[in-house]
Amino acid sequence: MNIGIIGATGLVGKEIIKLIENNHLKIKIKDIRLFSSIKSIGTTFVIKKQIYKTEELNENSFNNINVSIFCSSSEVSIKYAKIAISKGCFVIDNSSAFRMHKDIPLVIPEINGHLVNLSNGIIANPNCCTALLCLALYPLHKRYKIKKIVVSTYQSASGAGLKGLNELKNQINDYNITDNKLKTDVFGRQYLLNVFSHNSEINLINGYNDEEIKIIEETNKILDSEIKISATCIRVPVLRSHCESVNIEFTQKVDINNIFVLLNEQDGIDIVDDRENNIFPEPINTENIHNIQVGRIRYDLSDETNSTINLFLSGDQLLKGAALNAYQILNLCQNININKYNLKN
Amino acid sequence: MNIGIIGATGLVGKEIIKLIENNHLKIKIKDIRLFSSIKSIGTTFVIKKQIYKTEELNENSFNNINVSIFCSSSEVSIKYAKIAISKGCFVIDNSSAFRMHKDIPLVIPEINGHLVNLSNGIIANPNCCTALLCLALYPLHKRYKIKKIVVSTYQSASGAGLKGLNELKNQINDYNITDNKLKTDVFGRQYLLNVFSHNSEINLINGYNDEEIKIIEETNKILDSEIKISATCIRVPVLRSHCESVNIEFTQKVDINNIFVLLNEQDGIDIVDDRENNIFPEPINTENIHNIQVGRIRYDLSDETNSTINLFLSGDQLLKGAALNAYQILNLCQNININKYNLKN
Repeated sequence: MNIGIIGATGLVGKEIIKLIENNHLKIKIKDIRLFSSIKSIGTTFVIKKQIYKTEELNENSFNNINVSIFCSSSEVSIKYAKIAISKGCFVIDNSSAFRMHKDIPLVIPEINGHLVNLSNGIIANPNCCTALLCLALYPLHKRYKIKKIVVSTYQSASGAGLKGLNELKNQINDYNITDNKLKTDVFGRQYLLNVFSHNSEINLINGYNDEEIKIIEETNKILDSEIKISATCIRVPVLRSHCESVNIEFTQKVDINNIFVLLNEQDGIDIVDDRENNIFPEPINTENIHNIQVGRIRYDLSDETNSTINLFLSGDQLLKGAALNAYQILNLCQNININKYNLKN
Repeated sequence: MNIGIIGATGLVGKEIIKLIENNHLKIKIKDIRLFSSIKSIGTTFVIKKQIYKTEELNENSFNNINVSIFCSSSEVSIKYAKIAISKGCFVIDNSSAFRMHKDIPLVIPEINGHLVNLSNGIIANPNCCTALLCLALYPLHKRYKIKKIVVSTYQSASGAGLKGLNELKNQINDYNITDNKLKTDVFGRQYLLNVFSHNSEINLINGYNDEEIKIIEETNKILDSEIKISATCIRVPVLRSHCESVNIEFTQKVDINNIFVLLNEQDGIDIVDDRENNIFPEPINTENIHNIQVGRIRYDLSDETNSTINLFLSGDQLLKGAALNAYQILNLCQNININKYNLKN
């Protein structure tokens, strides 16, 4: 399988390259081609002792590629995904461009990996918070149908890309030196030692930002359109890994011990819930870790019917929230007939 | 009125001294006496150009004091509050020692200040998160009865006292220098660039920490015992000021425009809800500010009956969350007959 990575020099692109280098799923990869924006063309990567340089993306880039992973903007995905398919190249798209398209599967391999086989050439990778959230909700919804969730996020700088991450890093460096005159070009406000509403565009009518709408719509698409979802997205001064505080109301009484069992049995989840030592999920402990952590698992005491629980989760938004999920989809692509796209060429 | 401040050298004590120095409510204060733990005895404060030194607290300390404000531990409050009353000294207690006692009022002046007149000598000051939360909920509950709230907190280091605050400050200083070997004596974990479950004691059976139970029980006591409350308390790397993400379900349909009006009319609240410019409450903007900020005010889209809303608030936990609320209670004490406690002496 020849693969292409579009946006190789970005935070997510670099994580995909690392995953391919380590290749823990032993995906059979023949050739790799890397693409970047014009200003980064020629950036060098060493993958398994072989040197790769990023190229400019154009209409002919996809000719000998079987699967391309897009880790760039929605604009790039919209412009090139269809060209890729027309050249017989399967697309895994990290942008939000196609996620809500009714004919395009939105895939978390642990939940709905089978949809890869039904794809018409594009598989969408979910929003970072959505991926972490759905993985935790999935085993619970399967056993006890979820009625409503209320989620508040604690999102890191890495979700805003390299520029956002660097701005927070620079603010730490500058904090002691420059007498608190910190550069705030990306977020327009001090990020260090602060908390603020997510920096995505806001719908002026309903007051929701794009990130919140993505969590709501994508979770409904992946899990169940009937689940009622309320989301509030907040950035916290953390470099990497997101957290989410989730109140989950089920359609029936649940057994909290069984909730632990269900989460423990779910691939991709580590339970971190040590009440005696006050050890629960923390973003600093999920950085660079494939599994998400789930803890603070307890009944909502205000619901006397025992139909509602709370939990707190943390996961690396660059891994399960982006690159790892895409890499897992790439693994599933090995089993589908890539040739059917080649035939269209 | 002669007043005494017990725990004058702590974070809250110092804020009360500042409030008394500025005295924006023009409370008539004759003499001030400051008390501290043994190790800080003799600490000097200048209030209105007069020098005050902290003294050791003992059974005779209250003889000539009309109102004492306790800003120390629950243990100190339990040991000395009753002695104070027996000497005719009214007690405003910042600790959690007496908050849930059925005969002791738990007061937020904007909400239930009249209870000061019914006190038997002790007024309890609520938990920091509770005070901020109740102030925002109060005008809404009065108009549209609240059925349930789900709150997730974003709590600062100052809530853990001077030691906690200094640990976070030191971690910023040390972050660039010591190759990431940060001192973690207070919280037992890196606080800078991290998020973690609140460091109060956890009930091993139900999984709730003390901070969460305080929010639940105290809000029920102050506002209405029938409100169902679910709370998750999380620390974020912020020096001062807490934030809270709140989902509020009412017993009836609400008008979101009227929610804005009600919050706007409430003393102690500033609405910060600029959707066009993405300006909402931030802890860095509420530091040292008396009013709390409320924003992200919007319908919960998942409730088609328009009976549920979301909001995000921020407030200085050392001010409205502690010292300011105590100072406001002190103001109300001027109007009660302090002599009736003197008579008991």
